[in-house]
Amino acid sequence: MMNALLLDKKDTAPRLRSVKAPIAQQGQVVVKIKAASLNHRDIWIVKGLYPGIELPVIMGSDGAGLLDGKEVIIQPGNGWGEDERCQGNTYQILGLPRNGTFAEFVLVESSQIFPKPPHLSMEEAAALPLSGLTAYRVLFTRCKAQAGEKLLVTGAGGGVALFCIQFALRAGVEVYVTSGSDKKISRVKEMGVSGAANYKSENWPSILKKQAGGFDIVIDGAGGADFSSLVKLCNPGGRIGVYGGSIGAVPNFSPQPVFWKQLSILGSTMGSDNDFTEMLDFVNKHRIVPIVDSVFELEEGDKAFERLEKGHQFGKIALKIA
Amino acid sequence: MMNALLLDKKDTAPRLRSVKAPIAQQGQVVVKIKAASLNHRDIWIVKGLYPGIELPVIMGSDGAGLLDGKEVIIQPGNGWGEDERCQGNTYQILGLPRNGTFAEFVLVESSQIFPKPPHLSMEEAAALPLSGLTAYRVLFTRCKAQAGEKLLVTGAGGGVALFCIQFALRAGVEVYVTSGSDKKISRVKEMGVSGAANYKSENWPSILKKQAGGFDIVIDGAGGADFSSLVKLCNPGGRIGVYGGSIGAVPNFSPQPVFWKQLSILGSTMGSDNDFTEMLDFVNKHRIVPIVDSVFELEEGDKAFERLEKGHQFGKIALKIA
Repeated sequence: MMNALLLDKKDTAPRLRSVKAPIAQQGQVVVKIKAASLNHRDIWIVKGLYPGIELPVIMGSDGAGLLDGKEVIIQPGNGWGEDERCQGNTYQILGLPRNGTFAEFVLVESSQIFPKPPHLSMEEAAALPLSGLTAYRVLFTRCKAQAGEKLLVTGAGGGVALFCIQFALRAGVEVYVTSGSDKKISRVKEMGVSGAANYKSENWPSILKKQAGGFDIVIDGAGGADFSSLVKLCNPGGRIGVYGGSIGAVPNFSPQPVFWKQLSILGSTMGSDNDFTEMLDFVNKHRIVPIVDSVFELEEGDKAFERLEKGHQFGKIALKIA
Repeated sequence: MMNALLLDKKDTAPRLRSVKAPIAQQGQVVVKIKAASLNHRDIWIVKGLYPGIELPVIMGSDGAGLLDGKEVIIQPGNGWGEDERCQGNTYQILGLPRNGTFAEFVLVESSQIFPKPPHLSMEEAAALPLSGLTAYRVLFTRCKAQAGEKLLVTGAGGGVALFCIQFALRAGVEVYVTSGSDKKISRVKEMGVSGAANYKSENWPSILKKQAGGFDIVIDGAGGADFSSLVKLCNPGGRIGVYGGSIGAVPNFSPQPVFWKQLSILGSTMGSDNDFTEMLDFVNKHRIVPIVDSVFELEEGDKAFERLEKGHQFGKIALKIA
């Protein structure tokens, strides 16, 4: 038996339960989880906003731990398929429908196991997989960010956005951000960001225009009405990487600036095993340390979920698992 | 002196006038125009919908004719610049602000001169430049169409759409179309198109879905509410090439299918000298013959414009210039 955060009812926080420990079949391994981290995906699953939810399920997509005495990190995606351009029908993310990392042990395919970056603690390593992978793919694989280019990342403070900022800075990209929190903006500025605007002030686009002129790349996970301002802020030949749409649809999306400025709007989600390998290489090479907002014990899972839902965090919320 | 179709007042058809013939400066040439063709751009200029309109102007972006006894075709764009991704600030299209091809002679830069495809008549050659270039760039340079892929071209019958269809068929792409006219659909089917739907019938997306399953590439110049159906019809990893927005803004553009299916929405307009060279090579190699809807004398310019504005044409409307 093992302890795990089990979601057994929609719209309730997952609860600590004692459940059967998993047993590996051929091609699979059981990892002793030392740390895990939360994603917005977990909140959407609790709220029942994902297709194919089957309860009860042990939640959690991100984890780091031990396998045969070695420190490992888990690629949360499995079954991407042969086409680097997009995930196939067999693609699954850990934590739904298969049991996830908010437990003492997790069952995964052997192919999902990668060496933990040695310069990271277990909590830091557990903060990396899903957000780091998403950030790496949208920034480099899709938008092909280059040194010297100007990049705008919206919603700084979120997991993917922060990794985009960290990765881009190390790649020599000039980074600007938006955030709804002046506190988060000052934190990001300490990281080396060149400029920022609070999107709650009506004139945020003109503030950024004044600071940067325009952007070669924009990375956005929000959508909504502000998306049209992002299009306007793009330089000719610019790329907009879209990895989410938390605000929802763009109410009035004009094709004119898209074709006249020859923009590329590039959707991206998660990443392939190649993306994951490249991301780990990049993190190791540049000794990047994920920003961990806070660490909770597995028993405090409800507090961790509460903090994520309130959106006050800066960086990833981790779980420590004994 | 020479005859030319001169636009001297907004919202009136350009009129035949006798004006001074141009004289070449260094690096320039004067081409004796034998045929020209109309573009929607010409209608928008008449309506005053372009920035930087200075009247009077001799209209016309497309032309073929004679230079030093040789048959030539004119690249309508000039000053694209060094960046293949997008046109620079110095980029101009013939016919505004510089005098265009609806005249006996036109002044262009030497770099705009290319050999006329020998298998084409002057009227066929004059039908090619702007639409053929736009089609080639959006289809191949931007969307990287490959043999065996499924392509949907919206608004079949328009100049760019028809070149997309012709080029794609010769490249081994499986082509489907939409049109608002059953007559145009039957004409396009004769060209070898695999399927079609009339966008005036409410269930056009499900008709196409039934025929093709889904599309790897969509080429659209319309935008508007139907754009969201195009997004839905895209296969995972698909590309949507956007070369215009004649209907206007998309009222409700959802980011979700864009990131989840890892779509690429690729704006494109006109093309570089490289695109033009490749397009001519492709047309010569495959002996592609542009579809000419009708040929008018220069004196009948008003009738040519009337036909274009009514939108009943299938292919390009040409002017024959003695």
